Amino acid sequence: MKVRRCRENPIIGPKDIKPSREGFEVVGVFNTAVARLGDEVLLLLRVAERPVGGDANTVLAAIYDTAKGDTILKEFSRNSSDNDFSDPRLIISGGRTYLSSISHLRLARSRDGVHFEIDAEPALAGSNEYETFGLEDARISFLSGTYYIDYVAVSPNGVTTCLASTRDFERFERLGVIFCPENKDVAIFPRKINGKYYALHRPVSSLFATSDIWLAESDDLICWGNHRYIMGPRAGKWDELKVGAGAVPFETEQGWLEIYHGADRANRYCLGAVLLDAEKPWEIIARSAEPVLEPQADYETQGFFGNVVFTCGLLFEDNILKIYYGVADTAVCYAEIELRDVIAALAE
Amino acid sequence: MKVRRCRENPIIGPKDIKPSREGFEVVGVFNTAVARLGDEVLLLLRVAERPVGGDANTVLAAIYDTAKGDTILKEFSRNSSDNDFSDPRLIISGGRTYLSSISHLRLARSRDGVHFEIDAEPALAGSNEYETFGLEDARISFLSGTYYIDYVAVSPNGVTTCLASTRDFERFERLGVIFCPENKDVAIFPRKINGKYYALHRPVSSLFATSDIWLAESDDLICWGNHRYIMGPRAGKWDELKVGAGAVPFETEQGWLEIYHGADRANRYCLGAVLLDAEKPWEIIARSAEPVLEPQADYETQGFFGNVVFTCGLLFEDNILKIYYGVADTAVCYAEIELRDVIAALAE
Repeated sequence: MKVRRCRENPIIGPKDIKPSREGFEVVGVFNTAVARLGDEVLLLLRVAERPVGGDANTVLAAIYDTAKGDTILKEFSRNSSDNDFSDPRLIISGGRTYLSSISHLRLARSRDGVHFEIDAEPALAGSNEYETFGLEDARISFLSGTYYIDYVAVSPNGVTTCLASTRDFERFERLGVIFCPENKDVAIFPRKINGKYYALHRPVSSLFATSDIWLAESDDLICWGNHRYIMGPRAGKWDELKVGAGAVPFETEQGWLEIYHGADRANRYCLGAVLLDAEKPWEIIARSAEPVLEPQADYETQGFFGNVVFTCGLLFEDNILKIYYGVADTAVCYAEIELRDVIAALAE
Repeated sequence: MKVRRCRENPIIGPKDIKPSREGFEVVGVFNTAVARLGDEVLLLLRVAERPVGGDANTVLAAIYDTAKGDTILKEFSRNSSDNDFSDPRLIISGGRTYLSSISHLRLARSRDGVHFEIDAEPALAGSNEYETFGLEDARISFLSGTYYIDYVAVSPNGVTTCLASTRDFERFERLGVIFCPENKDVAIFPRKINGKYYALHRPVSSLFATSDIWLAESDDLICWGNHRYIMGPRAGKWDELKVGAGAVPFETEQGWLEIYHGADRANRYCLGAVLLDAEKPWEIIARSAEPVLEPQADYETQGFFGNVVFTCGLLFEDNILKIYYGVADTAVCYAEIELRDVIAALAE
């Protein structure tokens, strides 16, 4: 696959982001939603922060406290056998799971799509009981003049997907939990199909240990049902462990093109392509045998959680996929792929 | 709690059920939905079957094959270290999960609510890709002249909840998957509240290892959203491990009364009560400190999966809760509890 990576990659890194409060440091800025507003490209970045401080014996984690209406700090001893820090993203303590960082969504604006001005304050940060561990991985779907933002909300009650809307990216309206635990990687199609809204989503099945892509339909974007199984991991391939929707699907002459992510057993995340029928988006026309984008550059293979490329959004313009993607749970990159090359890969 | 158990308990057992096909045996008839139709009490029983045969070295499991449109048998060697039979409900083979029995839904009719005539054939059995491992644990909600049946559909893609409808319990219409994996214990409220349908449901959160009761709303019973967390397990109590909705909620002067199930770490399942606000069913008014029904009789403590009482339905008539409940994943029992005694327990 011919991938034109931006020479300035990563285009946004942790050092470019002002922490949301004193005493915090930004540890990652990655999986970003993207939209066009006028002549600007807007990103809704996932910014992961953690409290500075603690000491050699203590790890601090930030949690939004609904009763106080503010973020509080929780201490975990490095020396307690009750605490497990083996996954750098998690803190397991006394059988409970916490996150090692707390994420919010931050707006960035650009005229050329590569050089961004980043807001000093969060656009959306934890503010209710479903968001106490933060907001992650937004996707933006533009529908009838309104931008709908779905994002992952994490709390001790589970990983849900919530919806918000905006017309101007200044005022946002929260619309509630649209997919209950455990569900993420929700990508809402950017137009109705035969009178219904559709969304790809990725529920996790505990008993059967599966992470598959499903499709749901809706009349109002809030209530979703008639769930259909779309596709799962493929044994022995780069997407053998799990798959999930990536960017919001976009229309081509051949059907809906979805750039999804897949991971193998080593937790190496690549991007693949799947083509869905234009009128029956539950029918797969073709799925790429090989990744269309895989971790190869240093900034993709190394970092907080290395060997990860992960997209939540792209712009499809001039028959080019302009992909914004997170690398190594650390930074934001940009790459371009010609549509004809993706279509050719789907035919192999 | 004063519980009047029926003297003829269990009122239905495996020997009362004709297998759905030659070569099968009924291993359990338990968690049952209930409805009134005219002067009859109707049950929609969960009937669990398994193939007769195999030998000392082989376990047979039945699976619905969508390509063949028929049930096929799969063999598992008892001698393979790849196969794990430690949970009697499951077969784990080569990292994949299968069920040791396949369930369908069977209709039974009675005039006195205790002595039932049981159909010779299933009312609803596995017939699509979401039901290849069977149908389980139905609940019936009577809404505007139609009986809506939600039931658990199990397949390798996960545990989902599906909806069907009927007016006469002779013809059933399937309405699709209404809750995606992993979700069961769905109880649809029997009337709209302020213009919306509501349902209790029980998603399983893998990352945070929770099994909590949530509430969803709907305009059409098919698409569900605006999910709200209602309640979870209580540390150190009889419902410390997991909870899930049981019977369809019913109205009292005090609010919606829901009889739910809870399990402790020993997988002992009891029934409790929770009272929800009449107009805001996401608000808990009271929750019983102790179970209202717990495994005490021999037929409740012993059996295929002992120490389990589990309800999917009750009739609320003459201020009495007429509870139909499964015992030990083996048989169906009946008990009566006075409403005033449940209300008193909620005040403790």
